[in-house]
Amino acid sequence: MKIETDIRRVAIIGLGLVGGSFALALKEASPGIAIVGWDQDAQALQEAQARGLVNDAARGYADAASGADLVLIATPLATLPEVLGGIAPALQSTTLISDVCSTKQHVVRNARDALGPAFARFVPCHPIAGSEQSGAGAARADLFLGKPVIATPLPDTAEEALAKVLAIWETLGAVSHRMTPGAHDELFAFLSHAPHLLAYAWMDLATSRASLSEGLALAGSGFRDFTRIAASDATLWTDIVFDNRAAIEPLLRAHVDTINTLRRALADGERDMVATLMARAARLRRALP
Amino acid sequence: MKIETDIRRVAIIGLGLVGGSFALALKEASPGIAIVGWDQDAQALQEAQARGLVNDAARGYADAASGADLVLIATPLATLPEVLGGIAPALQSTTLISDVCSTKQHVVRNARDALGPAFARFVPCHPIAGSEQSGAGAARADLFLGKPVIATPLPDTAEEALAKVLAIWETLGAVSHRMTPGAHDELFAFLSHAPHLLAYAWMDLATSRASLSEGLALAGSGFRDFTRIAASDATLWTDIVFDNRAAIEPLLRAHVDTINTLRRALADGERDMVATLMARAARLRRALP
Repeated sequence: MKIETDIRRVAIIGLGLVGGSFALALKEASPGIAIVGWDQDAQALQEAQARGLVNDAARGYADAASGADLVLIATPLATLPEVLGGIAPALQSTTLISDVCSTKQHVVRNARDALGPAFARFVPCHPIAGSEQSGAGAARADLFLGKPVIATPLPDTAEEALAKVLAIWETLGAVSHRMTPGAHDELFAFLSHAPHLLAYAWMDLATSRASLSEGLALAGSGFRDFTRIAASDATLWTDIVFDNRAAIEPLLRAHVDTINTLRRALADGERDMVATLMARAARLRRALP
Repeated sequence: MKIETDIRRVAIIGLGLVGGSFALALKEASPGIAIVGWDQDAQALQEAQARGLVNDAARGYADAASGADLVLIATPLATLPEVLGGIAPALQSTTLISDVCSTKQHVVRNARDALGPAFARFVPCHPIAGSEQSGAGAARADLFLGKPVIATPLPDTAEEALAKVLAIWETLGAVSHRMTPGAHDELFAFLSHAPHLLAYAWMDLATSRASLSEGLALAGSGFRDFTRIAASDATLWTDIVFDNRAAIEPLLRAHVDTINTLRRALADGERDMVATLMARAARLRRALP
């Protein structure tokens, strides 16, 4: 693998689903790269080492980052300031830094504050390869295969750092895209963050109505798919929706308007309005590759 | 198969996904049963016969029902009055009648009006085995395998008719359940009808925003699952949501209330409220078998 000429040692901070899968995929693609791992959860770290996800278990953020050619931050959003602050003193003048967070504007601000000149080598990334499952136990070497990874570089991001980090993701099978942090956060409010909130909200209706919760076992595949993301980790998603609430709010407001329009149409017998909206939405959904 | 002693000839009115799958599954389970089919779409009927889904193609509702031991109505909701009126004169004194519609109260009223004394042998059913796909081309012999089929008999439904119709569904692999038409319609407003409306409504946000529709290709599995049912047939679902609007409306109202509560919590920084709702909803969703 050509990336091995530049990248010999990779530190992965956070060995959950994404960090663990990155480790597995990297080991498979480039067995010569040494992977050092760190996780706040000592047991998760031990297990990752026992399963061979990482070659070495670090003793902390700085120890992990020390000597690394790439530091991948794959911890929950809320820990970013602490992690960035922890690795900053240990970075070499060529170390690449990247993350996998679901929102990007806030992460970029945190990184700019924490990294100083090393910010030019920070490449904010978001692999679109989540799951309602979490933890290293769910990690898979093919998690990123054929999936988009979105980089949101800034004007002061070094082009070489961007190219190298994206080359690594592509080595793992991901397809790289590029947009601004703001455009990313607006798009993923629609594609992911607000849908999570809405799925949790719909599921929550059953918590206060026995007739609905007792009937849940009769749910078909439509309901199961519609609510699947409501099985996701609540702490993680609370952080994400608060982090990106500025982009989520106008979408929720517009959605409430659409629902209220549909309610009036149902009450008033306006079949054409409902049929037209459904047909228009269905055309767009069917066009999804 | 034991059901063949009672059921020798089955008429299937409507050879779409559900009717076609019923035909395939019945042929596989009980090859001795003769299946006569009818579809308003002459080409669909011809194809069903060419593919061996049906032994005979009928010339109309009455012709299909004539001599049948069971008439299964698997046409869209809006056609029920016409179909019931069409088969009624051709029913024998022992003919069983059943349907597969997604709502039950309205169907039961239609059937009571159209069938007269034969209403005692009408067994309203709803197999929970749909798909966003439609048409006989999507029909599969295993569509009902392990899936619930819900019967909503009335006080004047003959127990023997109910038992026989459910025995047929179970022969096809379905698991039978029983509730009142009203309880069914309330439950499936939550499990299916309102989620369809909501998925269409969410998808529709992208139709008026270029930045969202252009980014759709980057959608991950969460978005794809959340909106999958928005690819369903718009005409069919317009009929269903209008038919069951009385049960859908209070759920949409409650959902709008929940969304607005979440919007206020996001604006006011009430993390605990959001985290608690998400965790409660996630527990319920994860408990789904």
